[in-house]
Amino acid sequence: MVIVMSPGATPSDVEAIVEVIGTAGGEAFVSRGVSRTIIGLVGDVARFEALDLRAMAGVADVMRVSTPYKLVSRENHPERSTVRVGGVPIGPGTVTLIAGPCAVETPEQTLQAAEMAKAAGATLLRGGAYKPRTSPYAFQGLGEAGLRILADVREETGLPVVTEVVDAHDVELVASYADMLQVGTRNAQNFALLQAVGASGRPVMLKRGMNATIEEWLMAAEYIAQRGNLDVVLCERGIRTFETATRNTLDVSAVPVAQRLSHLPVIVDPSHSGGRRDLVLPLTRAAVAVGADGVIIDVHPHPEQALCDGPQALVDGDLAELADVMRRFPALLGKTAAGELLTSA
Amino acid sequence: MVIVMSPGATPSDVEAIVEVIGTAGGEAFVSRGVSRTIIGLVGDVARFEALDLRAMAGVADVMRVSTPYKLVSRENHPERSTVRVGGVPIGPGTVTLIAGPCAVETPEQTLQAAEMAKAAGATLLRGGAYKPRTSPYAFQGLGEAGLRILADVREETGLPVVTEVVDAHDVELVASYADMLQVGTRNAQNFALLQAVGASGRPVMLKRGMNATIEEWLMAAEYIAQRGNLDVVLCERGIRTFETATRNTLDVSAVPVAQRLSHLPVIVDPSHSGGRRDLVLPLTRAAVAVGADGVIIDVHPHPEQALCDGPQALVDGDLAELADVMRRFPALLGKTAAGELLTSA
Amino acid sequence: MVIVMSPGATPSDVEAIVEVIGTAGGEAFVSRGVSRTIIGLVGDVARFEALDLRAMAGVADVMRVSTPYKLVSRENHPERSTVRVGGVPIGPGTVTLIAGPCAVETPEQTLQAAEMAKAAGATLLRGGAYKPRTSPYAFQGLGEAGLRILADVREETGLPVVTEVVDAHDVELVASYADMLQVGTRNAQNFALLQAVGASGRPVMLKRGMNATIEEWLMAAEYIAQRGNLDVVLCERGIRTFETATRNTLDVSAVPVAQRLSHLPVIVDPSHSGGRRDLVLPLTRAAVAVGADGVIIDVHPHPEQALCDGPQALVDGDLAELADVMRRFPALLGKTAAGELLTSA
Amino acid sequence: MVIVMSPGATPSDVEAIVEVIGTAGGEAFVSRGVSRTIIGLVGDVARFEALDLRAMAGVADVMRVSTPYKLVSRENHPERSTVRVGGVPIGPGTVTLIAGPCAVETPEQTLQAAEMAKAAGATLLRGGAYKPRTSPYAFQGLGEAGLRILADVREETGLPVVTEVVDAHDVELVASYADMLQVGTRNAQNFALLQAVGASGRPVMLKRGMNATIEEWLMAAEYIAQRGNLDVVLCERGIRTFETATRNTLDVSAVPVAQRLSHLPVIVDPSHSGGRRDLVLPLTRAAVAVGADGVIIDVHPHPEQALCDGPQALVDGDLAELADVMRRFPALLGKTAAGELLTSA
Repeated sequence: MVIVMSPGATPSDVEAIVEVIGTAGGEAFVSRGVSRTIIGLVGDVARFEALDLRAMAGVADVMRVSTPYKLVSRENHPERSTVRVGGVPIGPGTVTLIAGPCAVETPEQTLQAAEMAKAAGATLLRGGAYKPRTSPYAFQGLGEAGLRILADVREETGLPVVTEVVDAHDVELVASYADMLQVGTRNAQNFALLQAVGASGRPVMLKRGMNATIEEWLMAAEYIAQRGNLDVVLCERGIRTFETATRNTLDVSAVPVAQRLSHLPVIVDPSHSGGRRDLVLPLTRAAVAVGADGVIIDVHPHPEQALCDGPQALVDGDLAELADVMRRFPALLGKTAAGELLTSA
Repeated sequence: MVIVMSPGATPSDVEAIVEVIGTAGGEAFVSRGVSRTIIGLVGDVARFEALDLRAMAGVADVMRVSTPYKLVSRENHPERSTVRVGGVPIGPGTVTLIAGPCAVETPEQTLQAAEMAKAAGATLLRGGAYKPRTSPYAFQGLGEAGLRILADVREETGLPVVTEVVDAHDVELVASYADMLQVGTRNAQNFALLQAVGASGRPVMLKRGMNATIEEWLMAAEYIAQRGNLDVVLCERGIRTFETATRNTLDVSAVPVAQRLSHLPVIVDPSHSGGRRDLVLPLTRAAVAVGADGVIIDVHPHPEQALCDGPQALVDGDLAELADVMRRFPALLGKTAAGELLTSA
Repeated sequence: MVIVMSPGATPSDVEAIVEVIGTAGGEAFVSRGVSRTIIGLVGDVARFEALDLRAMAGVADVMRVSTPYKLVSRENHPERSTVRVGGVPIGPGTVTLIAGPCAVETPEQTLQAAEMAKAAGATLLRGGAYKPRTSPYAFQGLGEAGLRILADVREETGLPVVTEVVDAHDVELVASYADMLQVGTRNAQNFALLQAVGASGRPVMLKRGMNATIEEWLMAAEYIAQRGNLDVVLCERGIRTFETATRNTLDVSAVPVAQRLSHLPVIVDPSHSGGRRDLVLPLTRAAVAVGADGVIIDVHPHPEQALCDGPQALVDGDLAELADVMRRFPALLGKTAAGELLTSA
Repeated sequence: MVIVMSPGATPSDVEAIVEVIGTAGGEAFVSRGVSRTIIGLVGDVARFEALDLRAMAGVADVMRVSTPYKLVSRENHPERSTVRVGGVPIGPGTVTLIAGPCAVETPEQTLQAAEMAKAAGATLLRGGAYKPRTSPYAFQGLGEAGLRILADVREETGLPVVTEVVDAHDVELVASYADMLQVGTRNAQNFALLQAVGASGRPVMLKRGMNATIEEWLMAAEYIAQRGNLDVVLCERGIRTFETATRNTLDVSAVPVAQRLSHLPVIVDPSHSGGRRDLVLPLTRAAVAVGADGVIIDVHPHPEQALCDGPQALVDGDLAELADVMRRFPALLGKTAAGELLTSA
């Protein structure tokens, strides 16, 4: 950490800080400038933070110079990780396609969507049984009945299941059906839920909060990791900005930035970012090209009847083009589409 | 609702919509312009929304023209509401000061902070026993031990207690100690929690999500109201913007806007908005002047030792000025400071 | 400045920096931590910035610890300044009301608006002859004819004139009619214009860019000051955020923050912030209460016929309330309304 | 346009509007709902806007349903345009690489950078002689001397020149040297400058304002088009958001959205978006993959000595990879790299 003193700080203000840091088992290096003095701190940052140095006399600013996350940081784990979901890899060597309906509505709709997904090259099935909705009057999902449908469709198609959990106390139930637990953007700082999925024994897909900085997103992942679960996949899904032409603003830069800061895989959700069907394929191409380790996409056999987010679901006619992107783009980045890997195995 | 057709829409596209709306029990009024046709819909909006009209051929845009919230709306409840917390009113006629430590740390610190609060004119005591923290390595609160301290301090000072709950499954426990439950900014779309506090029988203070539009904030309140609890107080606490000089950007305009849209009381948190002690008093004055029905403020006997948010807590020296603001500003708005009300009663 | 080295930086990386700084006439203080080394720099920051230290081997981050503006900074000019416009003070001791029509349309409309302004306590007249408009098809102002109207109305009412200039090459012309030049939010980084008003010999009102940080706003003021003109008044007018219920988000915190960083007066524009008539009075109260040195407000005798921003102009019926705010609020802050000052003089 | 009446609007409020619209030569279609009445307007939108309907009694909202730009809209010009700069095409069939130094510093540096650019496949040379800088103390460019250097380097390399103009009154001078004029992000609403480049007879590259919505960006292009210049290329260069890990947030979705709304070509600036060298290549890949018609990139022979934006310039070692992207990615989108086109011609 670095402490910047204000121009009017006195020598005894500086001494007081040196003493406090010494008492906390650290060392303070003082650099006196013409208009300002700065103090470099060496030692246990957590202990320094507890001191609330900012409140001490003469202090203008306190700057952290190391990252606040440890377990998910690439500093201590330079090699990028691969997370396996029911045998399917998500990581640096592959581009994994996760697809399926936004919400599970009926067995038929889910099975049809799963078959569409598979035809496009998907190796994991997404589908929501618990839906966090802005309005209490909107469809909230089928709950456990939806989980049973997903398990049946997995049986039929062989696709492992990724599904969202919205309450810490449902984690055990959802984990008994799902291969991967998803934490949604509205729960990105629901710490009770993060800790519960951390203890669940299942891989977790952690969506970025729509207002979360990359650092806060990695801190949320740290909550999961701290409970012993390092099988976390980060998912960029768009952030909230002033632009209203798209539902959210897909932050593609976040993919290489997060991959540089953390060893965890990073995927992209082009469906929820744009919120418009016509943007899904362009944003999928951008996601793969920027280096994402996978994409998660809404498909629906009859989007005009969907109970949730119909306007952004891909339909049958789009799937050939999606399959084409998944076939041709990963190779340009030196990656394999996860589907090919399984086929060739 | 209004449907805007795209310039290339055909007469049969328009007919299809008229038919669909008719089937859904509504009426469609078609206005044909030179370059565009627009269709006004009259009937049950919820049924129309389920139709996903945006996905129909020829549709360019679908615009909602009524508010999506009902119970908290002022349209059906023109008079502004007063919520009572342990006898203390929060509402249009008063300016209520809620103050106390950000986090409950010890019985002594909590009692001292409560006495500071009372001296400044506070009629409700705030204090956190469960703290949502961005870092898993930060102090997370004392839990039930903290609740017991709050109850003891209430006993001693007579101040009813406002405290945060962060998990749906703690609501019953927290409600057994607290007079008012607080839902924090990170849980503003934790719908399980909103429903649980809605069923708790306790008044609720709902902080605005740091990325929530005013409409989303009111929808979150609607979740609580829908469970039968209309004792909800809205609390503006700053939104996330590009500006980094302050922790958040206090959106003072949100106070009159929310008061016009909803009958619920609206208060302001000047401590968390700015994140800096030197901004607390100016922002408190602005909050009262803009018409807020109360303010909630951090005070701490020894902020340099605080385990949470010390740098924004008011200290002893600031309290006379706070008391002065609470004494002189409400009258300018034709309001009474809630404290005077109790004293004179 | 402080340089933070990356964890993998070598001793020779550190030496290279120490040498470069020495060559640039500075001194470098090295603090070696367990995982990181930090280097404090003392000397001429401008010379250090030209070195592009961030591009040197082993450098993780370079942090500036002093402010980049000098002439407008309060560090070197601790006392807050008062700017005088045709004899009317704007500064720490007063709250100045500037009012008038958004755009000058006709002599009658301008005179009527000026009389409304005066009745409400205004001591300066605002009015635009050059209007920057998002659409090339919108009314762009009367140009010099508008300036002549303003000069006539000044003659008749005694109110000095504040008016916008949008092109560096109009500055001389506008300055020949106006008492104060206004630089609008869209030109907050039009550096040619900033330099031209800096050389104009007239006081300048500098609106904050709708996307400008407070630091960038002060840097824009520094451009004006650098040309020898320290008669600059800063005007907060709302920033762009995700919230769409108001046209912009009034950042009231920016007032005390800017007043602490700079000695220049800071005023608020409640009309353009909210973009809605019903918010003008609440936001005016908030602005005065937070400590603004003045407010600038749109008034129009017939807003339904206004060629520009009619929906946010105050009308006759609102003026008594505005006058009341100007009469009662400044005293609470220990300030005088500028109008009273002139009357009593 | 659509007018939404407030719930309390009276029948005579509605009649007043119908009459006003009729007087303005339009037609009003009234749809009476249970809680609200909506009125569809058919006729000349510009005349309706001048009426300021929002200020009329009983009006809750006025919604525009057609686009406010005409000449740049794809509605009236469905085929996408190609702009030619000194013979080099920018448009739907190609991916054009524009590269060169951020600022022209010396003849040698500019020539070396141009040769680096050419080796990577660039067919247009960028370079700034007039630099808009946040600080008045930063390097502001060489002015006309820089333009002469650019002209000499064009002579030597055959690359047409793209360069920024920052003041309306420099347009003629800059146009006498340059093949394409660039309007930067800080001038995206400098309407005098937009009109001047519109009258210049040169193609224009219009950067998106860092806080501009896509609609405002297209309105800025309309200003240029309205002066008779349809040779406008739109350039997405990142928007300002709350994320601080990157200098700006590259909004890749803006590329397909703008291409759908306007017939103008859309390119991307990956250098200024991220502000970090390590992001330039990933963002270039994303830009080409999302469908951009070109990219504009900073290169510098010695970035550690650059007078402007050194930290984001590509260096020699990166160029082979850039060339590789330009060779392999466009074909995936059915496009040709503009360089190949010229070579094969």
